[in-house]
Amino acid sequence: MFAESLNDVRRICPLVHCITNYVTVNDCANVLLACGASPVMADDEREAEDIVSIASSLVINIGTLNSRTIPSMFKAGRRANELSLPVILDPVGAGASELRTRTAMELMGEIDFSVIRGNISEIAAIAGGESKTRGVDASDPGLLDGDLSADIITLILKLREKTGAVITVTGPKDIVAGEKCLYTIKNGHPMMSKVSGTGCMLSAITGAFCAAASDMAVAAASAAGMFGVAGELAFERLTLEGGGTSAYRSYIIDEVSNMTPEKMREAVKIEIR
Amino acid sequence: MFAESLNDVRRICPLVHCITNYVTVNDCANVLLACGASPVMADDEREAEDIVSIASSLVINIGTLNSRTIPSMFKAGRRANELSLPVILDPVGAGASELRTRTAMELMGEIDFSVIRGNISEIAAIAGGESKTRGVDASDPGLLDGDLSADIITLILKLREKTGAVITVTGPKDIVAGEKCLYTIKNGHPMMSKVSGTGCMLSAITGAFCAAASDMAVAAASAAGMFGVAGELAFERLTLEGGGTSAYRSYIIDEVSNMTPEKMREAVKIEIR
Amino acid sequence: MFAESLNDVRRICPLVHCITNYVTVNDCANVLLACGASPVMADDEREAEDIVSIASSLVINIGTLNSRTIPSMFKAGRRANELSLPVILDPVGAGASELRTRTAMELMGEIDFSVIRGNISEIAAIAGGESKTRGVDASDPGLLDGDLSADIITLILKLREKTGAVITVTGPKDIVAGEKCLYTIKNGHPMMSKVSGTGCMLSAITGAFCAAASDMAVAAASAAGMFGVAGELAFERLTLEGGGTSAYRSYIIDEVSNMTPEKMREAVKIEIR
Repeated sequence: MFAESLNDVRRICPLVHCITNYVTVNDCANVLLACGASPVMADDEREAEDIVSIASSLVINIGTLNSRTIPSMFKAGRRANELSLPVILDPVGAGASELRTRTAMELMGEIDFSVIRGNISEIAAIAGGESKTRGVDASDPGLLDGDLSADIITLILKLREKTGAVITVTGPKDIVAGEKCLYTIKNGHPMMSKVSGTGCMLSAITGAFCAAASDMAVAAASAAGMFGVAGELAFERLTLEGGGTSAYRSYIIDEVSNMTPEKMREAVKIEIR
Repeated sequence: MFAESLNDVRRICPLVHCITNYVTVNDCANVLLACGASPVMADDEREAEDIVSIASSLVINIGTLNSRTIPSMFKAGRRANELSLPVILDPVGAGASELRTRTAMELMGEIDFSVIRGNISEIAAIAGGESKTRGVDASDPGLLDGDLSADIITLILKLREKTGAVITVTGPKDIVAGEKCLYTIKNGHPMMSKVSGTGCMLSAITGAFCAAASDMAVAAASAAGMFGVAGELAFERLTLEGGGTSAYRSYIIDEVSNMTPEKMREAVKIEIR
Repeated sequence: MFAESLNDVRRICPLVHCITNYVTVNDCANVLLACGASPVMADDEREAEDIVSIASSLVINIGTLNSRTIPSMFKAGRRANELSLPVILDPVGAGASELRTRTAMELMGEIDFSVIRGNISEIAAIAGGESKTRGVDASDPGLLDGDLSADIITLILKLREKTGAVITVTGPKDIVAGEKCLYTIKNGHPMMSKVSGTGCMLSAITGAFCAAASDMAVAAASAAGMFGVAGELAFERLTLEGGGTSAYRSYIIDEVSNMTPEKMREAVKIEIR
């Protein structure tokens, strides 16, 4: 089920419209190409609707949100909803500034998202729980170590209820909470947190998988599983060939481009509960 | 003739002013350094004219055009024309939104371009022909497979007449249409289309080659030939060393930095017709 | 003393707020993670103060300054001063446009910087001396070859007096001019100038080191020494493994991520005079 999703992406070759941050935008474009999709980055208010109209899905990432791009996020999101396209939200750094938290909340109020993906701090911030976001790549370590507590699960389910979106929470284990079931994904490698943009890349990939799927929870879990497996294979290669965090980042994208359903079937560890 | 162009770039070390998109801007800066030029990226309206005044050429790339940068493109372009500097246009995604097509048309109306480089969809869109642009890296496959039809050649020549610019159309084969002759470049590798920004990089390199040349068509063809050869050598290295699309992207820039006129002479396949 | 600074960064894991250019921002984010810090890039006026309030230091880089981000630089800088956080200025391209020179001067007028880092052209431009800046990565070769003249040293000391900031001038040799002593750092490799963003990366790293230190001159010298050693080790690896400028750039970040105080102790060449 999960491995087949990759074939669907490669067959359909969806065009994924990203309104995203300028920090990791190049990695997002390249990882979309690597997984078989096509990227289009466009954030001017005057073209946001045109571009989304030719796209297969929309990914809104607030990593470097600003006065010029925020209105484009709303316009593109509303148009994507009219066209029934999947829309993904990556609330980067929600909780770190009033602007980020408020913008994420307003986006959720006006736009129907298919998937919302963040780390636990960001998800907590927009679910109305406590948040101690410390920038965009950092998280409250207490929330991330080991298993997620019952409180956290409650928070995730609350956000799912409020938004109707599938919620992907990434960390040592990833959680994908859909309407009917909750997936736990035990793939990936801790070193992924030492590479800028792994979260953004997964959100972009989720946009590609959702565009090629009918079940958004399966699509989100497949994307997270595939990317986690890529992180594992990349770490194996790093161990063999040496290098540091920059080599590792390049290997992750390489492994996405060389991913096959067979590799996924062998390595994906997704539990349904 | 073509191989000597590279020496001219390295001797003159032109400063290339790029008003370009934030997706591939880093690759453009690095590939300019790799081929022996110096990059300067500056897009504020208040400094566009100052920067172009110290530059050797200007590259305008509309990949993430917006309300703030469009006026800078016009200001820099007009100033470059006053100074008789080569100006290159990369109409990224023309045909994909009304804003992109219109901005490209208006730029062509006000500014004299030395070279316009795009894929066939983009070139068709701004030549006033039919276009089915599907985002920024995708094209109508019918237009790209095999040889370009007589209709397409007519369209390219029409755009050349209208603008007075050399037209570079990249695809499985590249076409460079100058005033006096038409070059066909049979270099490159299909995998280059799986790396974000290869088109943008070629436009930037074209800016460097034009700054160091007197014949814009020869400069444009040399740039396309050189970059195609880099793509081929990078693919050979990928075959030997393994890796995926991210390794390939890095190898392409590596091969540009290690390019020599000798390597070009051996591998460049440019036909004049 | 210098090698211990790296341990401090890794122990404290400072959050470094960067208002920086979109050309090299991804490398800045990744090199901050590589050296043990956390990056947060945020440039909207409405969140600049919020973000700086949770950060450990602020790095202002004017590489692609514009009408939207300049006010954010002032707001974030003033707030950082109120909070007594280290603030680093990278006056990219000062001297290349009136906007850049003036903005850098105004920033120095309103904000107390801990460290100002630039190449000699940029430093000369903002010190009120002669400048012949030719873009953002190029410099007057006369100023860079061999030892810095007495005139240049006078200029650096003048800027230090005027601003109260530690001045880092990078080139074949780096100079760090603190209140009490002047360090000469003989690390690095000439090929670093063929990679876009090595200056920006050092400014970001300087932000990390300052956040973890009490003596800003020692922090700035340690950062320059560490990054120079990374450039040397990266060149050794390039010599062994082959490749070009893109491989070299990746190796530099790799070597930062694999840097240890031991490696620094062995290779750092810092003279106090």
